[in-house]
Order: sequence, then structure tokens, then C-alpha cells
Amino acid sequence: MLEVAATGKAQALVDRARLWARHAEMARFGATPLGGVNRQALTAEEIDGRRCLIGWARELGFAVSMDDMGNLFIRRPGSDDSLPPVLTGSHIDTQPSGGRFDGIYGILAGLEALQAIDAAGIATRRAIEVVTWMNEEGSRFSPGCMGSLAFADPARTSDLSAIQDLEGVTVADALAGLRLAFPDVPARKLGFVPAAFVEAHIEQGPRLEKERKTIGVVTGIQGTRRFVVEVRGENAHAGTTPRRRRKDALLAALRIVAGLEKLMRDPEDVVRFTIGRFIVSPGAPSVVPGHVLFSIDFRHPDDAVLEMRGDQVEPVCRKHAGKCDVVVKQTSRTRPIEFAGLVPETIERATERLGLPHIHMPSGAGHDAQNLVKICPTGMIFVPCERGISHNEAENAKPSDLAAGARVLAETLVDLATR
Amino acid sequence: MLEVAATGKAQALVDRARLWARHAEMARFGATPLGGVNRQALTAEEIDGRRCLIGWARELGFAVSMDDMGNLFIRRPGSDDSLPPVLTGSHIDTQPSGGRFDGIYGILAGLEALQAIDAAGIATRRAIEVVTWMNEEGSRFSPGCMGSLAFADPARTSDLSAIQDLEGVTVADALAGLRLAFPDVPARKLGFVPAAFVEAHIEQGPRLEKERKTIGVVTGIQGTRRFVVEVRGENAHAGTTPRRRRKDALLAALRIVAGLEKLMRDPEDVVRFTIGRFIVSPGAPSVVPGHVLFSIDFRHPDDAVLEMRGDQVEPVCRKHAGKCDVVVKQTSRTRPIEFAGLVPETIERATERLGLPHIHMPSGAGHDAQNLVKICPTGMIFVPCERGISHNEAENAKPSDLAAGARVLAETLVDLATR
Repeated sequence: MLEVAATGKAQALVDRARLWARHAEMARFGATPLGGVNRQALTAEEIDGRRCLIGWARELGFAVSMDDMGNLFIRRPGSDDSLPPVLTGSHIDTQPSGGRFDGIYGILAGLEALQAIDAAGIATRRAIEVVTWMNEEGSRFSPGCMGSLAFADPARTSDLSAIQDLEGVTVADALAGLRLAFPDVPARKLGFVPAAFVEAHIEQGPRLEKERKTIGVVTGIQGTRRFVVEVRGENAHAGTTPRRRRKDALLAALRIVAGLEKLMRDPEDVVRFTIGRFIVSPGAPSVVPGHVLFSIDFRHPDDAVLEMRGDQVEPVCRKHAGKCDVVVKQTSRTRPIEFAGLVPETIERATERLGLPHIHMPSGAGHDAQNLVKICPTGMIFVPCERGISHNEAENAKPSDLAAGARVLAETLVDLATR
Repeated sequence: MLEVAATGKAQALVDRARLWARHAEMARFGATPLGGVNRQALTAEEIDGRRCLIGWARELGFAVSMDDMGNLFIRRPGSDDSLPPVLTGSHIDTQPSGGRFDGIYGILAGLEALQAIDAAGIATRRAIEVVTWMNEEGSRFSPGCMGSLAFADPARTSDLSAIQDLEGVTVADALAGLRLAFPDVPARKLGFVPAAFVEAHIEQGPRLEKERKTIGVVTGIQGTRRFVVEVRGENAHAGTTPRRRRKDALLAALRIVAGLEKLMRDPEDVVRFTIGRFIVSPGAPSVVPGHVLFSIDFRHPDDAVLEMRGDQVEPVCRKHAGKCDVVVKQTSRTRPIEFAGLVPETIERATERLGLPHIHMPSGAGHDAQNLVKICPTGMIFVPCERGISHNEAENAKPSDLAAGARVLAETLVDLATR
């Protein structure tokens, strides 16, 4: 019973005001005029955010290190450092129109838990590490969850390093810039098998708020298929070119999207189908546009649905392309995954001990935990966010909910690290 | 009969190879990898093009001057310089994905005509000037035909000067840069009433080529209405946000465009309806897009059609906006105009004397001539272009057709300047 007593002591030292203040401080890096954050992977803003985080860790006496994919680790040693550590954390990068909580909450809750455990004078058997995964959002470099992907499968390093952003900068180039910015952060080898991984995150959906629950014990993550569709027509003069001679890539793309909307129709509203990027060229008001490039993000908890409907994407695009050419490329594919056993059970016990209202729920969004689950016991803790709004500058959460999640996390970490 | 004899002598000295070589030389300024030209108004590329043109004019002994709106004039004096000159010319700016002939042909044909008239030793009563109108395309600064608009109505100068490009640079700023680039080009007062204006241009449509005619005597220009439509939804997470809670600005815009397509349906294919700019924000693959901005370019030779259908644009946008907000703004409106009398009659006589096959035809595209017609006798000469393709890097024309147009232009200018 020593562990449980110790844990109770740690969670009591989680400081709501301090955790909230760190979110406000971190939101300065990449702050947008509308109160959100644009802090994309390996940009100057993200590097500034890392510098701030490293400063806090070192002030608390924790060692930091970074691996070859830019994953950053903050370590509190255990009594037996020959054992693999327990890992917690999330990501510091955001969407271009991101909010102040998505990702960074999992890191700051981890740091808060570490500080509380330390202040409580608890010695854990295993070390606990707070990790900052590189490029979870995938908005600058695609695919997302890149750092955790390479961590779980270091053989992917070389193909991931060659990926370019829209300006032609490769991941390898950007990582070299990151290393230059932190000459005093020791390097560590990429990839190992942790004892367990726990990720705290805002829900990014409306369910906890609607059902008045504080904690979501996450049961799994839906699968995704992502595509890029290129429609090629012909630039032409808007004033002179008759309709029957046009190859208007925009109108073709609109017909294609209408066809895809039909393919993805779902009265039960479980299918998540989104066209988020849609670039029309040359983009001049008096030129019939000859080129459109658009993204498809398709998610579902049932892999059979992903398989069947996803396989229809290309035929539907071809069917509606008219006189234009169309090229469809699948850019990523993840299967639905499940969190079960040690970590979710430990989270649930902690939640019950703290008397916090909770539910079991799946995650609509992808998270780095989906890569960790392949190599170690893994689970996630969700806390509510306002109106379920995320990937939006208006993203918001309550200080009390964020602190509750950090308390559950602290309990869970001590429990796991004591095994 | 002196004039006709003199004219015949000038057209014979039009040099096809020289005219073609000048097009090739000019295409270097803003050259694109696909063989086209991106030389937008008042950019470094356009300024380089002007420098080349000024060099040619001065080598031939012609004086140059520039007015407050960046319109550039190359002058061959007449025997009575108290009389208003005859003007010819077009524009040097291009679309972002423009070709090697649109606009610049009218300037180079004018220079070729001037050189031929000079070589023939013809003294005209009136001066002849070749003008380069500023920002005809309207792709950097909207509206287009800006230099000729201010020339015909100098009272517009101050409002036009305040217009900004997408980077926030004003026309006034860009004009200051232009003046700095040419400290040795004398300034002249903006606006006067010319004796006449003639503009030579590639057709930018398929008709001359299809009907195997060399010259189009232009009868008028269709009217246009341009709009900008803004659709405002809400950014949201692609993985978590159920469809019924989304305010997807892209899907709303697609429904709106489908509605507009229906509004603009025309079995006779006379309506020109184009959405050339379509910008989706924030443009990240896993964010439901909260904002779309798109342009509408609507043209028709019948003003009643422009009036009726154009007035339906806003109601149709509102009808299909769903849960999104929509703002519709008309950005320009020109009525259909007619070229008749002195100039087209002079062009037709010259064409007949040269034995060139010709037709009378309207212009689908807008041109600077639409502003000049408000203040002086005006007309246009069209020459064929390959497959009617324009506003496209593949734009092409035959050296023999370009030379034929320049010969008609030389004849027409001598005729008009001798009156």
C-alpha cells in the first residue's frame, strides 16, 4: 500500500494555477492575433517553445536529452535505472490555426506531475520521462506523428528524413537547424521499449462536456486514410474561352468532391470525411483555372468501412473528372487501434481513487499513442474542452479540468513506475 | 492620294523577323519554366521589360516619357505638333501564367509600325505615340485596365493609387518604385484627348484561326461584372467533429458554386462565367476549413443579361450558404461597348488595300481600348492565336500573322495621323 499512499500525496501537490500559467506562457510562442497558436514543427516558434520547456525542466533539476528525430526527453531518475522508464508526453507543434491546449497540455501535465512527485519526495523504481514528440500535427511535414513513428520503428528514419515541406525544406534540414539551436542538449539514441506510455490530451470533441464528465479513459483511436488528389485541366482566358472548349480544373474538382460527399454519406454521423487543403492554380480572377490539388482525410473506427469506402475514392474521382485528368495518391493509412490492459486499467483506478466522474471513450483524433501502442502498454487520459472545438484559435479548456487530468496522470505514473 | 501611296510604302518596310525577335527578347523578362511569362504590373520583371523597350525606342531616335500612373509613351513627332497625336499600344504586364503575346504584341507592333514609317521617310501631320498602359491584367492590382482608366479619367487617380496587392503594397508605392527605376525618363501630365486610339492584340479566342482569317476588325467588347465572395464557417478538428456540428466553408462554397453554375447556364455558350481565384483557409489537411474567398468573372455582350443574372449572384450565394455566413461584393462593372466610325473604317480600308482576309468580330476579353473609346475615336485589330489559347503559358501565334497585323496597323496609323 506504500505506492497508493505515495501517489495520493503527489496528486495533492499538483498546482492548478502553475499549470495554467505555463499554458499561458507557452501560448506566447507562435501566438496569433485571434488568441490561438501557429507553432508548426521545427519552426522558430516551435524551437522557442522547446527552449522555454527545457528552461523549466532544468530549473526543477531534471536532465534533458534529444534523439535523432527531434524527440525531446525530460527525465526524473528512478531507484533502478537499469529498468526501462515510464513515458508520458505529447507534442508541442500545432496546426496553422491551432489552439493553446492541443498537444502542449500532455507535456505540461507531464511536467506538473513530475514536479508534484518530486515535491512529494516519492522515489519510484523506474525513471519517469516526459517526452515531446516531433511533428504530431503533420501540417508542415506529412505524415503527422512522425517523431513517435520513428521512435517505435527506427528503420523509418531515412525515408521520413527526406520528406519536404511546401517550401522544399526536408525534415533532415529542419532537424539540423533544431540541433544547432540546442548545442547543450545531449543526444540520445533513437528508440527503445518503454515500460509504458501514457498521453494526456484535451478531448477535441464535445462528449465529456456534454455528459459532464471530467476524465475520459480512452479505449482506442479510429483508423485513417489520407489521400492527395490532383486535377489537371488547362489554363484559359476567362473572357474568350467558350464553355465547351474549357478544361476547368476547379469545376471538375467540385464535381469530384460532390461525388465523394455522396460516397461518404453516413446518417449515423460516424464517418469523418474532410477536405482541408484545396489549392487552385494559377489563382487569377480572369484565368480559367487549370490545376487543383486537394487533400482527403477519412477516418472511421471500423477498418472494414475504411477499406471499402477508401478503395472507392479513386474510381469516384475518375468518374467525375470530365475532360480533366486526375491523379489520386494515398499518403497515409492507419488501422483503428485499441488501448487495453495495464495502462487504461491503471488510469481508471486512479480516476476512481480521486472520485472524478469518468467514461470510457474512443478518440476521434490521431495521437502519438497510436505508434507507442505497437511497442509497449499504452493508454490516454482525455479532459474536456469548450464546445469540443479544436484545431481552431478559439480552442479553450478549464483550469480545473486540466488540473484534474494532471492529478490522474501523476497517480498513474507513480503506480506504473513503482511496478 | 499622297497618303495612301506613303502608307503602302510603310507597310512594306514592316520586318517580320525583327518583330518576332523582339517578342522572343521580351519573353525573357518574367520567363517561366513552361515557356510562358509571369510579368505582373510594376514588378521587377515588368520594369526590366520596360527598360528593354525604352532602349529600343531610344536607339531608333524616339523620345520617351511617362505619366503619373506609369503609362509609358514613345513618340514620333508630326509636322504640326500643336495637334493631338494618334495613339496606339497595349500593355506589357501579364497574367501569372501568361503567354508571350497577350499585350506586348500591341506595343511591339506599334514600335514596328513607327520604325517602318520612319524608314519610309513619311512625314505625318500628327505625332504618333506608342503607349504602354499600366496594369491591364488586374492580376496584381484589381481592377485591370488601370492605367488607361486613369488616363481617360484623371479624377480616378487618388482612389486607384490606394489599391493594394495581396502583400499590402499600394499602387502608389509600386509607382514610386517605377519612377526610381527610370530617373532619366521625363514625366508628362496624366491624360489628354488623343486624335484616335488603335490597339493591336492577339484574338485570345479560336474564331480567326477556325475561319482562316488573318485580321479581325473589332466591333466592340462585351461587358463584365466581377465579384468577390467570402464564405465564413468555423475551423474544426477533422477527426473529432461530427458532420452535424461542422460549419465547413469549403462544402458551403461548393454548394454555392453549383448554384451559380445553374444560374449561369447557357445552351448557346455566350455567357462567360469563371471562378479563377478560390482560396481555402487555413488549408491544413486535418482541419475542417473555416474560410473561403473566391472571385467571380461574368461577361456578356448584352447588358440586360449582365444586369439580370448578375443581380442574382448575391441571392444565390445566400440561398446555398447553409450554416455559414456569406458576404458578396461587386468589385467591377463595365458595360458592353462598341467600336464604330473612323477607326474601324480606317482599319478595314487598310486591310482591304493589303488584300488580307478579314472579318468583323466582337472581343471576348476586356482591353484598354474600352477606356479610350470614352474620350476619342477608337478601334482594335485582332490577329489569330493558336487554338485560341491565352492566359496560358502555351499561348502562341504565327510570325506571319503578327507581321500582317503590324502592316495593317502601320497603314492605319499613317492614314489617321495624316488627317
